[in-house]
Amino acid sequence: MSATKQAPLRFSFLGPAGTFTYAALKQVAPPDSIEIPALDVPMALRLVRSGEADYAVVPIENSVEGGVNATLDALTDGSALQIKAEMLVPIAFSLAVRPGTRREDIRAISTHSHAWAQCRGWIAERLGPVVHVPATSTAAGAKTLAESDSPGFEAALCPPATVKLMGLESLSDDVADNPGAVTRFIMVGLPGPQPERTGADKTTLLVQLPHDEAGALLSMLEQFSARGINLSRIESRPIGDSLGRYAFSIDAEGHLCDERIQAVLIGLHRVCPQVVFLGSYPSASGERIRPRPGTSDADFQAGREFVERLLAGRA
Amino acid sequence: MSATKQAPLRFSFLGPAGTFTYAALKQVAPPDSIEIPALDVPMALRLVRSGEADYAVVPIENSVEGGVNATLDALTDGSALQIKAEMLVPIAFSLAVRPGTRREDIRAISTHSHAWAQCRGWIAERLGPVVHVPATSTAAGAKTLAESDSPGFEAALCPPATVKLMGLESLSDDVADNPGAVTRFIMVGLPGPQPERTGADKTTLLVQLPHDEAGALLSMLEQFSARGINLSRIESRPIGDSLGRYAFSIDAEGHLCDERIQAVLIGLHRVCPQVVFLGSYPSASGERIRPRPGTSDADFQAGREFVERLLAGRA
Amino acid sequence: MSATKQAPLRFSFLGPAGTFTYAALKQVAPPDSIEIPALDVPMALRLVRSGEADYAVVPIENSVEGGVNATLDALTDGSALQIKAEMLVPIAFSLAVRPGTRREDIRAISTHSHAWAQCRGWIAERLGPVVHVPATSTAAGAKTLAESDSPGFEAALCPPATVKLMGLESLSDDVADNPGAVTRFIMVGLPGPQPERTGADKTTLLVQLPHDEAGALLSMLEQFSARGINLSRIESRPIGDSLGRYAFSIDAEGHLCDERIQAVLIGLHRVCPQVVFLGSYPSASGERIRPRPGTSDADFQAGREFVERLLAGRA
Amino acid sequence: MSATKQAPLRFSFLGPAGTFTYAALKQVAPPDSIEIPALDVPMALRLVRSGEADYAVVPIENSVEGGVNATLDALTDGSALQIKAEMLVPIAFSLAVRPGTRREDIRAISTHSHAWAQCRGWIAERLGPVVHVPATSTAAGAKTLAESDSPGFEAALCPPATVKLMGLESLSDDVADNPGAVTRFIMVGLPGPQPERTGADKTTLLVQLPHDEAGALLSMLEQFSARGINLSRIESRPIGDSLGRYAFSIDAEGHLCDERIQAVLIGLHRVCPQVVFLGSYPSASGERIRPRPGTSDADFQAGREFVERLLAGRA
Repeated sequence: MSATKQAPLRFSFLGPAGTFTYAALKQVAPPDSIEIPALDVPMALRLVRSGEADYAVVPIENSVEGGVNATLDALTDGSALQIKAEMLVPIAFSLAVRPGTRREDIRAISTHSHAWAQCRGWIAERLGPVVHVPATSTAAGAKTLAESDSPGFEAALCPPATVKLMGLESLSDDVADNPGAVTRFIMVGLPGPQPERTGADKTTLLVQLPHDEAGALLSMLEQFSARGINLSRIESRPIGDSLGRYAFSIDAEGHLCDERIQAVLIGLHRVCPQVVFLGSYPSASGERIRPRPGTSDADFQAGREFVERLLAGRA
Repeated sequence: MSATKQAPLRFSFLGPAGTFTYAALKQVAPPDSIEIPALDVPMALRLVRSGEADYAVVPIENSVEGGVNATLDALTDGSALQIKAEMLVPIAFSLAVRPGTRREDIRAISTHSHAWAQCRGWIAERLGPVVHVPATSTAAGAKTLAESDSPGFEAALCPPATVKLMGLESLSDDVADNPGAVTRFIMVGLPGPQPERTGADKTTLLVQLPHDEAGALLSMLEQFSARGINLSRIESRPIGDSLGRYAFSIDAEGHLCDERIQAVLIGLHRVCPQVVFLGSYPSASGERIRPRPGTSDADFQAGREFVERLLAGRA
Repeated sequence: MSATKQAPLRFSFLGPAGTFTYAALKQVAPPDSIEIPALDVPMALRLVRSGEADYAVVPIENSVEGGVNATLDALTDGSALQIKAEMLVPIAFSLAVRPGTRREDIRAISTHSHAWAQCRGWIAERLGPVVHVPATSTAAGAKTLAESDSPGFEAALCPPATVKLMGLESLSDDVADNPGAVTRFIMVGLPGPQPERTGADKTTLLVQLPHDEAGALLSMLEQFSARGINLSRIESRPIGDSLGRYAFSIDAEGHLCDERIQAVLIGLHRVCPQVVFLGSYPSASGERIRPRPGTSDADFQAGREFVERLLAGRA
Repeated sequence: MSATKQAPLRFSFLGPAGTFTYAALKQVAPPDSIEIPALDVPMALRLVRSGEADYAVVPIENSVEGGVNATLDALTDGSALQIKAEMLVPIAFSLAVRPGTRREDIRAISTHSHAWAQCRGWIAERLGPVVHVPATSTAAGAKTLAESDSPGFEAALCPPATVKLMGLESLSDDVADNPGAVTRFIMVGLPGPQPERTGADKTTLLVQLPHDEAGALLSMLEQFSARGINLSRIESRPIGDSLGRYAFSIDAEGHLCDERIQAVLIGLHRVCPQVVFLGSYPSASGERIRPRPGTSDADFQAGREFVERLLAGRA
């Protein structure tokens, strides 16, 4: 009997290699995975939809690399996708230079515009007036610095792991105006079995409100409240087809295998014109959910048994 | 093979014969039923609990014969009972006299205190000052008038059907200060299969709120609202064991066989310390319930199938 | 200069003297008051409306003497009235007899039907089978027993204070199937300044829901919830003019002088077709209300000052 | 008598000139205004806080130039600011070239990364594989193209108005993968009198939920619902100080001068630990708000008069 070798997994991601998204990818991709950099978030997701990648890694919240609204919209713009995991990456930059460059040599620094916006205070205070040379990613400037003969700048701001990757040196490893910042990334795949329930899970939904109905948002949220479910994120997203209509992108605490999440999905499906299930997955924080009284699986089961007894004519 | 003759049904009721409760009984009891008058509502219900009667007929709302709060309390004070039907009886009295008596002969009138209170204006206007002689029921005065040699009064106020029953004559058949009044009665039996769903049904519940929780009433009502269920009656009833705690006696529109009623029962069972199901039965008004969008059985089934597809890994 | 003697106050009440309502009257009426017994609750209130009485004392909840629904309806059926006080009276009966009568002599007992219903168990257990002779009130049987030569019964069930009033003796002073029962009475007058705020107050309202609006009850209750106000009583009352429409009789915790009660009244007035204010008065329990965070007068004042600063262009 | 010449207004904006933000600025800035380009949104706002600018123009929603989350956060990170106006700018790009350049000459195109992401499909379909050269803004590429001897690219994607500004030519004026896209900008100033009420207004708030309170979001939204106020935008924003706490950035329909908005502000101020008022201003859509029944100023005034009559002792 011969062993069948498993094909390596293919991961698309908001490229190139060396960005924070890439750091998030490294948290979840097995070592032998095939890495497919994509030019933007919609492209990374398209590769999963077309079967050219098994998973995509993209930013979803507070990104220094853009793509957040793009991600929310691209997730539902096309055939069905589901989130399989979320990853947190601390956002601090390294000031990468070629070996031998000193701080006082730096006149221009290359990085992505968002990254620049998050480090400008630090740079101004420590290096004085230097010029920003925009790059297509947080890794692209470092790459150019390493490879080009005349890059036009003396330093690049990039993720710490990228410095060595590019054969550069770091003059500082925690460049950030707002220390402690973290960005959230997600791993996206085709619909299929959910990651197993851990007790510290999240479920992401896109819910559209019915037309013309005042108090519709409150009614929708009552579906969650009636089952004691907290939301960790809610964002209204305009719907293209008409002024003043909104869908809501929601992260709810719980897993599709939790009875209370199933109950809220049935309720939302009943009263909302569209409910898109975007996956249940372990929350990156790992904080266990303590269900409110009356909302555990056992409570739901007891409730159903109560009704079944009544239907059977027993009080 | 010989046919088995079905035993006649036994009905207890807030007696005696000839009252409005008796008129309600006649709406539901087959002609060959055995009628068991009871002295009060708790006794009528006790006869069902003990198996001495199959059903009890008692007033539940706006009664001229008392017993309403008594009924609400007695329904849940003891082993389980369920409401099987409700009946409406228009409340108008006949002014019953012995043959030969004229209006101007009347000096005293006998009837139940509640009945007197509802006719006093009519009497004062048409008969002038006459004395009230209280009786134990709306039929008892008429009975005494018919049977006693010296009843001590010349007339009795009783339900129209009672006049002939007692061999009396009526001087007027619509004595009432508030014409058009109607009283609601219920038929109560042991737990068992519910009356079939008609699309115009009611479900009666007693729901206790959790201790010490502000906004508890609102949370409880959200369970109904989240399933689009209207309430046709709600009454707070103090709970004996502590000042300031309340249970709620509720009539909800719908039948135990409606998915939305099952869903609300599961929800209430989860969050309330006590939920007593007191029966689903056709509403006497016969007005069909038009479920709000998203609350029909088909909507619930579609919602469950949606969740099942997700659990099976299909989007 | 000569002192002006104040005219004595006139109190109508659900008569006659010697009933539990009379005991409630004695809790609030000054010793020199003029007492005007009325035949029923509407009449007692009518005497206040017409100016023939200053106040009326009538039962409002769990009465042994009837009149509760009658009271709720009569309060709003006519010109405006307001509740000025509430009183609690413990419900236990005395078994009154003429001097010399022994328990074993008793064959028939007279009292009001409601009273009889509340003592029947006690009587049956201790006296065996005795006959009930209905009376127009809980005092009337005792009066007849004291005054009539041949009353037709040997005992009467009446309030304890009535025994001596009628010159009778008591064979037992705590006749009751349900010991510890209490009935609530109210003192009603013409609109005018409210009784002073005590911090343990109630406000009684009758609120009509808008026609044809699903979830109307929830919206109405949200007005209370949005100001953190608990309800100690709520009862749906059918409105005569159409099937399926309801008004709600409500006791809310708080006083008209509380900002949160004023705010809820403004809110109800905005969204409900009819709001009848039936008075703010000290609760008989005397239990102090602890306002929920953010609902004290100071919180409302701080909120208004916040808005005034904004309107003045200061942040 | 001599005329006093008014000093020209100073506008900071997310620079440089020629971007979509600049187009938004042109909608509101008088012709003689002083324009102060800022490197990022926090800087643009800082210039207003420091008094170096009277107003700042920055993107607030769906921007192609980034800065949206940055704007939400920067508005409340520092001394008080208020939104004075909002402006909509249609997002379509011009493909700008030096006179004489033809489509087939284009090998590389410069623009801001976000702009590139929104046009890539259009470009790929019509120009085939071309290289993206990132720029610091949607105007910067065009500027370099116009001014540099060897810019390194043959075309730039920029706002239509920028083509002529830079002395370039346009090969197409509606480059966009998603035609009809619109971005929302705001004009921000120091706290002061609000822009006059137009009947088509918005109010922007940042509201923090109380700690540790389940259902807190629902309670907060009930404050809006109890006054019939619709929200046109809601976004949860994590609060730095603790995992799992959220503030909500909200656009509500209505003006600080509307009674219902004042009432909701008082309510929020009472129950939320922090409420930041960020201005009332005419909505760019100009769609008039039709207040729900019972929520007009007249309804609030009638409600207050009702309470005042009660306080004065009149029913």
